Amino acid sequence: MTVRVGVIGAGMIGQDHIRRLTDVVTGAAVTAVTDIDQARAAEVAATVGAVALPSGAELIASPEVDAVLVTSWGPTHAEHVLSAIAAGKPVFCEKPLATTAEDCLRIVDAERALGRRLVQVGFMRRFDAGYRQMKEVIAAGSLGTPLIVHCAHRNPTVPDSYTSAMAAQDTAVHEIDVLRWLLDDEIVSAQVITPRATGMRFEHLKDPQLMYFETANGVRIELEVFVNCQYGYDIQCETVGEKGLVRLPDPAAVGVRTAGAHGTAVPQDWKGRFADAFDTEFREWINGIAAGAEPTGPSAWDGYAATVITDAAVRSLESDSQVVTVDMKPRPAFYGGTA
Amino acid sequence: MTVRVGVIGAGMIGQDHIRRLTDVVTGAAVTAVTDIDQARAAEVAATVGAVALPSGAELIASPEVDAVLVTSWGPTHAEHVLSAIAAGKPVFCEKPLATTAEDCLRIVDAERALGRRLVQVGFMRRFDAGYRQMKEVIAAGSLGTPLIVHCAHRNPTVPDSYTSAMAAQDTAVHEIDVLRWLLDDEIVSAQVITPRATGMRFEHLKDPQLMYFETANGVRIELEVFVNCQYGYDIQCETVGEKGLVRLPDPAAVGVRTAGAHGTAVPQDWKGRFADAFDTEFREWINGIAAGAEPTGPSAWDGYAATVITDAAVRSLESDSQVVTVDMKPRPAFYGGTA
Amino acid sequence: MTVRVGVIGAGMIGQDHIRRLTDVVTGAAVTAVTDIDQARAAEVAATVGAVALPSGAELIASPEVDAVLVTSWGPTHAEHVLSAIAAGKPVFCEKPLATTAEDCLRIVDAERALGRRLVQVGFMRRFDAGYRQMKEVIAAGSLGTPLIVHCAHRNPTVPDSYTSAMAAQDTAVHEIDVLRWLLDDEIVSAQVITPRATGMRFEHLKDPQLMYFETANGVRIELEVFVNCQYGYDIQCETVGEKGLVRLPDPAAVGVRTAGAHGTAVPQDWKGRFADAFDTEFREWINGIAAGAEPTGPSAWDGYAATVITDAAVRSLESDSQVVTVDMKPRPAFYGGTA
Amino acid sequence: MTVRVGVIGAGMIGQDHIRRLTDVVTGAAVTAVTDIDQARAAEVAATVGAVALPSGAELIASPEVDAVLVTSWGPTHAEHVLSAIAAGKPVFCEKPLATTAEDCLRIVDAERALGRRLVQVGFMRRFDAGYRQMKEVIAAGSLGTPLIVHCAHRNPTVPDSYTSAMAAQDTAVHEIDVLRWLLDDEIVSAQVITPRATGMRFEHLKDPQLMYFETANGVRIELEVFVNCQYGYDIQCETVGEKGLVRLPDPAAVGVRTAGAHGTAVPQDWKGRFADAFDTEFREWINGIAAGAEPTGPSAWDGYAATVITDAAVRSLESDSQVVTVDMKPRPAFYGGTA
Repeated sequence: MTVRVGVIGAGMIGQDHIRRLTDVVTGAAVTAVTDIDQARAAEVAATVGAVALPSGAELIASPEVDAVLVTSWGPTHAEHVLSAIAAGKPVFCEKPLATTAEDCLRIVDAERALGRRLVQVGFMRRFDAGYRQMKEVIAAGSLGTPLIVHCAHRNPTVPDSYTSAMAAQDTAVHEIDVLRWLLDDEIVSAQVITPRATGMRFEHLKDPQLMYFETANGVRIELEVFVNCQYGYDIQCETVGEKGLVRLPDPAAVGVRTAGAHGTAVPQDWKGRFADAFDTEFREWINGIAAGAEPTGPSAWDGYAATVITDAAVRSLESDSQVVTVDMKPRPAFYGGTA
Repeated sequence: MTVRVGVIGAGMIGQDHIRRLTDVVTGAAVTAVTDIDQARAAEVAATVGAVALPSGAELIASPEVDAVLVTSWGPTHAEHVLSAIAAGKPVFCEKPLATTAEDCLRIVDAERALGRRLVQVGFMRRFDAGYRQMKEVIAAGSLGTPLIVHCAHRNPTVPDSYTSAMAAQDTAVHEIDVLRWLLDDEIVSAQVITPRATGMRFEHLKDPQLMYFETANGVRIELEVFVNCQYGYDIQCETVGEKGLVRLPDPAAVGVRTAGAHGTAVPQDWKGRFADAFDTEFREWINGIAAGAEPTGPSAWDGYAATVITDAAVRSLESDSQVVTVDMKPRPAFYGGTA
Repeated sequence: MTVRVGVIGAGMIGQDHIRRLTDVVTGAAVTAVTDIDQARAAEVAATVGAVALPSGAELIASPEVDAVLVTSWGPTHAEHVLSAIAAGKPVFCEKPLATTAEDCLRIVDAERALGRRLVQVGFMRRFDAGYRQMKEVIAAGSLGTPLIVHCAHRNPTVPDSYTSAMAAQDTAVHEIDVLRWLLDDEIVSAQVITPRATGMRFEHLKDPQLMYFETANGVRIELEVFVNCQYGYDIQCETVGEKGLVRLPDPAAVGVRTAGAHGTAVPQDWKGRFADAFDTEFREWINGIAAGAEPTGPSAWDGYAATVITDAAVRSLESDSQVVTVDMKPRPAFYGGTA
Repeated sequence: MTVRVGVIGAGMIGQDHIRRLTDVVTGAAVTAVTDIDQARAAEVAATVGAVALPSGAELIASPEVDAVLVTSWGPTHAEHVLSAIAAGKPVFCEKPLATTAEDCLRIVDAERALGRRLVQVGFMRRFDAGYRQMKEVIAAGSLGTPLIVHCAHRNPTVPDSYTSAMAAQDTAVHEIDVLRWLLDDEIVSAQVITPRATGMRFEHLKDPQLMYFETANGVRIELEVFVNCQYGYDIQCETVGEKGLVRLPDPAAVGVRTAGAHGTAVPQDWKGRFADAFDTEFREWINGIAAGAEPTGPSAWDGYAATVITDAAVRSLESDSQVVTVDMKPRPAFYGGTA
């Protein structure tokens, strides 16, 4: 009855998901762990009574593993996901699905060849209660056709290792995925503008960035990415339709009046802001596997789409803010398309 | 065309109203000023080109005065208002109309004998945009019959001279008037409770106080009066009906996100909070006089009612929080009643 | 490792908690179920692979049961809780702990005699994120000493079987428990006032009711209970201290602008409003048992206190709104008191 | 003492300002009116006891006119403003100052030649309380240097006569002026994007439009103009700085909870939304004239700047969304510049 999960990659995010699968989500058990650092794998495995295995390949092959969670270094994702598909095992891969469009397509092709969805990509916003309410409102149609989406994605600070391209690859990629799903539409072009940069950052980093995306249906998406905004982790999203708009709520927090002001706290990191979304994401993934169903979360195709759209955004950033057409294959019927 | 106003009492509030009649309200001119301190009267009169007169009686009698504004010390109100009625001149009297119920009744009787409304009492909340919206919502009926009203009236601090009885007489009196008008109902009993007192006050003062009023129709009003709340001047009012509720808005103010919080400023005094209400109050008063109409603001009867209701509240405060029945005469037909 | 829970009472609330212990909370399994309706017990047990047992006594005695959950009819609570204490097993009892103060005291005495806390009472609000934030703010001290609490507890409608006394016993009891905890203070008197009743209710029911509680420290609690407010399930709480106030947030919900208004949905039932609180309540209860720790949630003493305070409120309701002193024993040292 | 105003143009906006100068603003009187429709001029003049004059030239020359208000058809503005400057009389000109950059420059040159500011242009947002609070917050510096401004300007509907170019010329021009003032910065380029158009409009109209402006200091302004949004008149503005953001409030309005939702009304037109701003605009203009001071509101230079910036926006709209550099002369020292 219990879904036995093997985890490839025991770093911070891997450990957090192991905790989630162990302490938060019912019906799951982490039975195997591997990591490039074998000592770390052993140490983490021991905390949950799992075995440490020497490689992803052995973990995927293990009869004690029903499903695979890939939280290793991005460039290794494709190899592990392809192995899991080859083994016919469900695989949850943290973003990115793969670091190149080519590798994403190899995964897509492998899954299509198998004829059954096994892959889910770790975009958690589709599981956030606010975005789900927003999708319901849009789908209900009372606001008419969506025309514009205004978004902001702000972090208090990022480390020195964060590069300008990561604003698209690591940060905006969450909006890219959730808006494709929210609008049930495809992004066809990207542009990145760099306004005056904040002085409270590293010299090498262009921050904030303003990103613009156009969809196949002509919706315009405006996204502010500002990863050193200092004041908090703040996610805003407003969809404007022909007859009205719908806006993501701020997280509920007590209001305090004192010393001349009414104030509410702003979250300080994504872990707190999206904790419930992460829990729901894994709960639904595990429940689906337990029920023998194919995953309903972000697919390999969504992972591919996110990669080619972020590629377009990075090309725009690196080519003086040109509008860059997204280089995306036609969507196969297997993934709900017409190709 | 211009309404020529004579002002009795040139203290702080008198000066503020003189400024309003001169600089804010069109169609009015302050032509005469008197004050117990004749030097002050002369000084204030000079700033607006008015004459200083030696007494209220002479001011009321002056042919240069079309209408009278009484902003003198409370115990002198009745005498001046009665004189104005005797002279057949419109008179705006700052609260209280008179300091005793008997004096209020003498004014009521004089006005009834005259057969024409000349008196308006200075309760400005009826002119506040928020309360007016609330009254419209209630009157429209979509919330059903009102059942309960929750209110709070908070000041940052009060001076040492403020007494426990003033919580009803000076502070709650604003809610007493505006709620009688809002509900179109009469208050029939009052009770005052003193919970744990704030330590940030003068020893002699019971603060906060919780006041409860019942209306003829059975509506229950809960009012928190807290005049040393430290954080700001904060007016709250929520009317609960059979099918929903309506709540007074906080004043519009920019929202600021910085240093981990989203904040908006809370007003610090009643002058700012009700500046627009004061302006509207005097604009409508002057326009009515210019049009030869009787005043539509709080009447002499409303001034009487406020006095007997605050009397009941003070008796409750001084009698160990007994529920005290308001000792009010039947409302004459002249003031919209049935007596 | 798994905590095996036996459930006494397989009605609606019992089934909901069984689902929670099975699908939401890790580390727990429902292994036995009993109900006065044995067919229902068998049916419910089958859905989670538990055994159906003929009586609470046998369930409590079962070696397959580590901990007991009592969700049966209120009058049977005391018997089952006492049996669980006698068996030395942790027991979670839905409110009320017992229907009489005497039975509550028997439980308190039994637990004290045992010398170890086994009982937790099902007041879920202490586990709500908003109340927990509020408690943190109060405890941090920046608002000074609490002086007043304003609360509202509104339901859209209740069935015909709901009586006027249930406004205290079933509805206000949640505020009674959470405010004792929030303020870390004891309630010493209660008064219930019945303003004009809504016309949108059963003739026999006094609704709304206004309840007033005083604490040992002199804090005044005002609580509106309105169980046929029509518009939604709405929980409000504002604590006013010497230097400011803190207010419970409304649940986060998307804002929608259309047709001339900005709107957000109001929850329609307590299940949705407090779903996360229920999950946290059981998660912490199970984790505590798994760790061998005594429960930290509402204790048998809290269950006793809630009962004697609601008793006082009902006596006030039935005695023409007299202020009724709570008839509570001194709090034993075992429960953090001094007796 | 009274400032005698002559009004050129007695259409809807002219009549509204005549009402304002007569009924709302103290110290002013409308003494003369002219209009291309002489019957209308006579009729409007009669309502306020003014004389109707046959032409703007005669009105400006009249010894009964101290100051001139130009509310005639846009293409006639320049002529009247130049005549007023020639006559040495203060002139308030509704937007636009002139319909071409050349005419604006003629006015600028005439005023510089005179060496004294006489011209104020009717951009009322600088007088709105919310924008003024926002400017104070920005100027105080606690949010750091401004980097990005997000704005929306939405109208419920526009008439058939509204053209795509008017989105910049008539609608966005308000943001253009107020943001130059708010940021104390100059706009140097403009771009207009047309996303999917609403189906709820005239076929000829591109609506909504997304406009982007860059300032000399590198601030990026994003402005959504949507003049058939159906739901209301909605003005949003958020300025993001290095350490936080400040957001314009929605107008204060009562909150209503009924039928499952919490709602507040959205204004339906600009007259209501900016009524106080219009009043303040004229009050300050009249007070300045009465005091013999030069106007402090939007200057002829600001009128010129607004015109060349809207020209750039229209060129972008008409050239397939090219980024268009604003063709602005260097700012003369007379207007606070360095040229």
